[in-house]
Formats: sequence, C-alpha cells, structure tokens
Amino acid sequence: MLVVETVPELRQAVSQLRSTRRSIGFVPTMGALHAGHASLIDHSVADHHATVVSIFVNPLQFAPHEDLTKYPRPRTADLKICDDHGAEVVYYPAVHDVYPTGFRTTVHVAELGTRWEGAARPTHFDGVTTVVAKLFGMVGADIAYFGQKDFQQQTLIRQMVRDLNMPTQVKVCPIVRDPDGMALSSRNIYLSNAERASGLALSKSLLAAQQHWNQGDRDPALLMSAMQAILAAEPGLELSYASIADVETLEPLTSPQPVVVAMVAGRVGTTRLIDNAVLGPWQPL
Amino acid sequence: MLVVETVPELRQAVSQLRSTRRSIGFVPTMGALHAGHASLIDHSVADHHATVVSIFVNPLQFAPHEDLTKYPRPRTADLKICDDHGAEVVYYPAVHDVYPTGFRTTVHVAELGTRWEGAARPTHFDGVTTVVAKLFGMVGADIAYFGQKDFQQQTLIRQMVRDLNMPTQVKVCPIVRDPDGMALSSRNIYLSNAERASGLALSKSLLAAQQHWNQGDRDPALLMSAMQAILAAEPGLELSYASIADVETLEPLTSPQPVVVAMVAGRVGTTRLIDNAVLGPWQPL
Repeated sequence: MLVVETVPELRQAVSQLRSTRRSIGFVPTMGALHAGHASLIDHSVADHHATVVSIFVNPLQFAPHEDLTKYPRPRTADLKICDDHGAEVVYYPAVHDVYPTGFRTTVHVAELGTRWEGAARPTHFDGVTTVVAKLFGMVGADIAYFGQKDFQQQTLIRQMVRDLNMPTQVKVCPIVRDPDGMALSSRNIYLSNAERASGLALSKSLLAAQQHWNQGDRDPALLMSAMQAILAAEPGLELSYASIADVETLEPLTSPQPVVVAMVAGRVGTTRLIDNAVLGPWQPL
Repeated sequence: MLVVETVPELRQAVSQLRSTRRSIGFVPTMGALHAGHASLIDHSVADHHATVVSIFVNPLQFAPHEDLTKYPRPRTADLKICDDHGAEVVYYPAVHDVYPTGFRTTVHVAELGTRWEGAARPTHFDGVTTVVAKLFGMVGADIAYFGQKDFQQQTLIRQMVRDLNMPTQVKVCPIVRDPDGMALSSRNIYLSNAERASGLALSKSLLAAQQHWNQGDRDPALLMSAMQAILAAEPGLELSYASIADVETLEPLTSPQPVVVAMVAGRVGTTRLIDNAVLGPWQPL
C-alpha cells in the first residue's frame, strides 16, 4: 500500500493504477477509522480493481467552537486498517496541501444544508461539499463510497454530483452498529460509559420507529411519537431533533409515504451524536 | 462533426473520442461565435487529437435586467464555424438539460468576483464558475480554452480549477481585434456606427497605456491618467472603470510592477463593453 501526502503524488499514483487496472473506487474519510469505514473500503475493493482512501480531518467543516483540534488522529492504526482491507493508495495530506495560501472557492448546495445538522452547524456542509469536490477532482475515481450514517451529508453530496455533472458516482453503504445497536462513529470514543448508555436512546428510538413501520404504521406523527417516547425518557440526552423526513428532500413529512427517513440527533455530555434509519425500500438517486 | 443536445449523448461522444484519440481540448462558448472564438477552436485543434465545443447561453450569468433573451443565437452560422475550424463534437443543449428541476448547487470564488465586472454584475461570476464547473465535469477535457478578452473571468476560472483540483487545465488565448483595434465581442452587433466609434475609446486607451509602458513608464497613476485622458474625451462613452491592476489578484496597483493588467469597461448606448491589455511578460498561473 502506498501512502502519499501531496496532490501530485496522489495524481501520479492514481494515473499508475489507471494504466493497469480498469476501475478505481474511492473512500474519503476523516480517519479515526472504525468498522463502518472498513466496510466502505470492503465495498470498494469488492467493486473495483483498485481502491484509494483519503484520510483528512477537514478544518472547513468544523466551526470554531467544535472539536477540530481534539478530533482523533490515530495514524498508525488507520493506515493498518486501510492496508488490511485492501486499499492500494492512501492520501494522507497536511492541511496546506489541501488548502494552500490563496484558496477561496466554495461549493454550496442550497436548501438541503440548512435544516437538521445544518441548523446546528451552519458552515458545516459547505465545508463538506467543498472538500469532497476537491477530493473527487484529485482522484477521478469511478465510484466513491459514503456511509448512510451521515444521511444528510450523502444527500448533499449526491445532489452536488448530479448538479455539477461530476464523473465520479456515489454509492451509499449501510450503517454499521455495535452489538448494542449504537451506530459506529469516530466520536464515540469521547463517550463515558454513562454517556454511551444515554446515547443508545438514539438507536433505540429508531428501532421503535422501525417496529411501528413493520407493523404497517405509516403516519409520520405516530412514528415520531414512538421515537420521542424513548428519547424523552433519557435524561442524559439533550435532544436536538427527531424527525420523519422525505428521503431525498429531507423535508419533514406530515402524510404517509412509501419510504421515509427517521433522523435523530442529540448531545450527551459535550458530544453530538446522530443516527438514522430508512423505513421502506430506498434507492438513492 | 457531431452535434449533441444532452449530457448522456455528450458523455458517449467524448468517451468514443477518448477510445481512439489521446487528448481532448474543449472550448466553452455562449455562441454568437466570432473570430475570437474561432481562434480558441484553432488553438485547441492545434494542441489536441479532438476538440469539443459547447454553445450555451447560460442564464445563470445574466441578471434579470440584462440581455439574456435578446442575446444572439445564430445556430446555423455557429455550427458552420465549429465545423470549418475542425471541432469534432458540439454540445448545444437546452436550458433544462444543463439546469434540470431541483438544480441547487453554486461554485463561488470569493473576493476575485466582487470587483470590476462583479461590482456591476453581482451574480455574474457565480453563474460563470458554476456553469464552467458543470461543463468541465461533463466533458472531462485535458485543456479548456478561454479568451483573454474576459480577463476577470479567466482569472476566476483558473482560481476555481486550482482550488477544486479539477483535472482540466485552462489555457488563455490572446484577444482578437478588428483592424480598427476594437476587441471582438458577441455584443458588438448591438452597436450603431456612432456607438462603435465611441466604443473604440476603450482600445485606444489601452494602446495609450501600452505606449507609455513601452517607453518605460511603470507608475500606475501615470498609466491610468494616459487611459483616462482618452476615455474622458469620448462623450458617447459612460465609463465604468479604467484601472491598472495586479495580473492575478486584480487589485488596483499604486506602485510599479513588472507586469500589470490595464482593464477598462464602459457603456455606449445600452451596450456594456470591456477590454484589457496585459503590460509586461505574463505567464498565467
């Protein structure tokens, strides 16, 4: 496995892969890799002749008060996961390689980024779409892999790819959970045992919505009250939102639909957690 | 020459070109092609195995009060110029093919787009960078060709390409002028004979700055006063700006530099005209 730190090295490595292998998959990450990221690499390795992973904690998607500096950066463990799962190239840049002096371009996806996570983190999604546009431009992969865990993120990225006619396609992969139901997140390491127990209310609320759905309930208000009953019973959780929304526009629903997304977010201690479940048959655009 | 009207047809045509020809040049235009555009096609044909031209009057770069509806669209003559100059593929889309329902993404280059043309046309450059990002994504050319005539435009596009690590490189080609010195523009057809005579003050003012430069004058204030003497003497011209600016940042200069750009813009009748000249040795980044 080759680890490169600059765009020219990355381009050369990809160009070399292209010369002998027909298709290239790409897994952009912020490192602190867990089994969720590993599953994205697995999907890419299964689908493509070569896989490129990027590991970059993107300052553009952190607000000044957020956890940019304390965000975990376990370089050795991350590279081992990439290698073990079959990545050929890892792009592991310094900040100035991605954002050199004079950088001043933003990719903005309107409306989709203002609700939910965007309401809590107003500059977050511009940072995400901008860095993903850059990484797509650098790598030129056939397909890039994102986790369903960051549901709003993958919605915005797919919209950007369609709107800007990017040649890289997006594939969304299922959420990976711990045995207790907790969605894997790099931020879970921040949690004390008590906080983790409180955070479990998120996945439990989604499970309740799923159970109602499986019984034939389609009324968004009913599904939401099932979620809220569980969330309200957890005093350690400061709920940010719990909603039944349209699976593409992310607008809150009031009438039954054949497919919806249940989204939930909240804070335990100083850590913000999010989770979601798609109810019904979903085929991302 | 193949004329295509949709993105899938365009992608297929480019993919077919790629399978047999090693490099592809791209000339994005708004049609109403003149010898300036033809020279861009000539440059591309000389540099590449195949050339793609796009002809699309981009509504995103026109303000509501501007000339979107009356902008000339001489389809037959435009296609003949593309064919005569050796283009292999022309993308000639309808608006809904470029901006389907739900389109909502903007590529914004900060600061560079607020001065000069951006001051007169606040939404203009977001429209330009967004459509160029899209066209680059559709075509995937090796090099795209832009005229120096729209100086600020090529500055913003080169910045966007660098910032978003786009794989398409940008080449800037010299301004083509009529024998009287008037820079070619699709909007020149709007001009009456009297308006055209007034509009000539722009290129005459640049010539005066060039003559001072050739004599060794480097003081921006002196170069500007040479321009303004000519511009002020033309009552038919409503001057918008005349400036000596940094060739990359476009900021107005007060101290001598080895290379500068003289930029001038104004209105004759209802038609806005722009022109520029680079003084000194220029190598676009």
